[in-house]
Amino acid sequence: MDAIGTQRVTVGQARDGAVAPHEDLVAIEEPLEIRVAADGEAGLGRAISVTMRTPGHDTELALGFLYGEGLLRDWRSVRRVRPAGPTGNVLQVELQPGVTFDMARLQRNFYTSSSCGVCGKASIEAVTSSVLVRRMEPDWAVAAAVLHGLPAQLCQAQAAHAATGGLHAVGLFTREGELVASYEDVGRHNALDKLIGSRLLADALPLADSIVLLSGRAGFELVQKAAAAGVPLLAAIGAPSSLAIDLAEQAGMTLVAFLRDGSFNVCAHGARLK
Amino acid sequence: MDAIGTQRVTVGQARDGAVAPHEDLVAIEEPLEIRVAADGEAGLGRAISVTMRTPGHDTELALGFLYGEGLLRDWRSVRRVRPAGPTGNVLQVELQPGVTFDMARLQRNFYTSSSCGVCGKASIEAVTSSVLVRRMEPDWAVAAAVLHGLPAQLCQAQAAHAATGGLHAVGLFTREGELVASYEDVGRHNALDKLIGSRLLADALPLADSIVLLSGRAGFELVQKAAAAGVPLLAAIGAPSSLAIDLAEQAGMTLVAFLRDGSFNVCAHGARLK
Repeated sequence: MDAIGTQRVTVGQARDGAVAPHEDLVAIEEPLEIRVAADGEAGLGRAISVTMRTPGHDTELALGFLYGEGLLRDWRSVRRVRPAGPTGNVLQVELQPGVTFDMARLQRNFYTSSSCGVCGKASIEAVTSSVLVRRMEPDWAVAAAVLHGLPAQLCQAQAAHAATGGLHAVGLFTREGELVASYEDVGRHNALDKLIGSRLLADALPLADSIVLLSGRAGFELVQKAAAAGVPLLAAIGAPSSLAIDLAEQAGMTLVAFLRDGSFNVCAHGARLK
Repeated sequence: MDAIGTQRVTVGQARDGAVAPHEDLVAIEEPLEIRVAADGEAGLGRAISVTMRTPGHDTELALGFLYGEGLLRDWRSVRRVRPAGPTGNVLQVELQPGVTFDMARLQRNFYTSSSCGVCGKASIEAVTSSVLVRRMEPDWAVAAAVLHGLPAQLCQAQAAHAATGGLHAVGLFTREGELVASYEDVGRHNALDKLIGSRLLADALPLADSIVLLSGRAGFELVQKAAAAGVPLLAAIGAPSSLAIDLAEQAGMTLVAFLRDGSFNVCAHGARLK
């Protein structure tokens, strides 16, 4: 059976001067429109976002996205989530009666413009001054040896990436280094949204006692989503960006990068490492 | 001198059970707000987009982005491009008198919803039925040996990536395989926008006789931007997505993936390879 989120294609494989037909698996990429309907709202509700994603775990993706934007704090606010239309690429999140939805916040979050103009500092202030970022306390520590063991576990769980080479993955681990869950997607922000949405559905947020590992790089957006979910230690196999480090510093999050080949860099809040 | 787009940080480098301070370079990530002002429009014009990017070549980024969205076809439509505000993170594109700007198109492009709901087919129709994609004719061919020589050239040009491990790159090559220009950014779509914007400024669009190489994967968005710029051959060192292949097929673009280690896969329109 092919891995979920993959599709067979026939390509021409060029090697040693010859091209031969070759059956390959590629990561599926399709748009997903997320819509939110307040109780009593007519039709399909309001369109919130369109993201290019790998189908599968769409409910988790939608809920995790809304959580990361500060638009949804609890699964109990949600009456049901259901596909709208025939393609499976429109998902409607229906809210419970009496639950309000702050469209203006969405605008503010996506679109930060202050009197100083847009700058990294304003971006950080916008997310840190809101509910979007939890301030994490350095109340536990993890051994470096635990971190070194994470990438191989995530790699094993990446069935679709192994088949296609085209997917990002995110893994959730206990602080003892046991893999709890992992998600894959063509978009790395989607993979993290899926993970956070799954924890929202399990009523397991914030992730106060967890380690999250990214298969790629750690940029601002990913640190923001992880901070919103209360992740105290975010590790990346790839590189960090300047603004990712700044936000992790502000949020009290331990940020680890280049976790591979038996070493890593501690970019923020090293006190949680022993 | 440090590479452009990088910043020095002190991290803790963990290796062999010990953590030692280590001075490292990271890729700079900062928001850029792109604003467009029609002639006579008051103030700073209208905000079009905020993207997280690596500073440098912001004018190229803004113009390439607008070009890819079908909002700008010619540099002659632009009166001037200038930073607004003190941070350097707001860029205002002032249009020439009489040049109109179709905000409704921006909405349509970002946000495709048809009677069938959102689907990959609708996404492809939305871009192929508009000016966003040129239909390329297979009027020339390139030797496989030329393709094999491209990654090493792009890699050499990636000064900031070499220093940080945290940047995507895009290279423009002649069909003989000579590097013409390359751009780096934390966002791969930004790197391609910078490249296309630079060609717009040089009055060198469409890129009818060129090869473009991506340092990472080929997703739908990147194929769309390349197709809008008339790139007949897009090559990626990483994996393709399903929708990227579908769009390349539709657009008449040769799509090459996994261009590394002496082989590659031809995912669409192999007739241009000899």
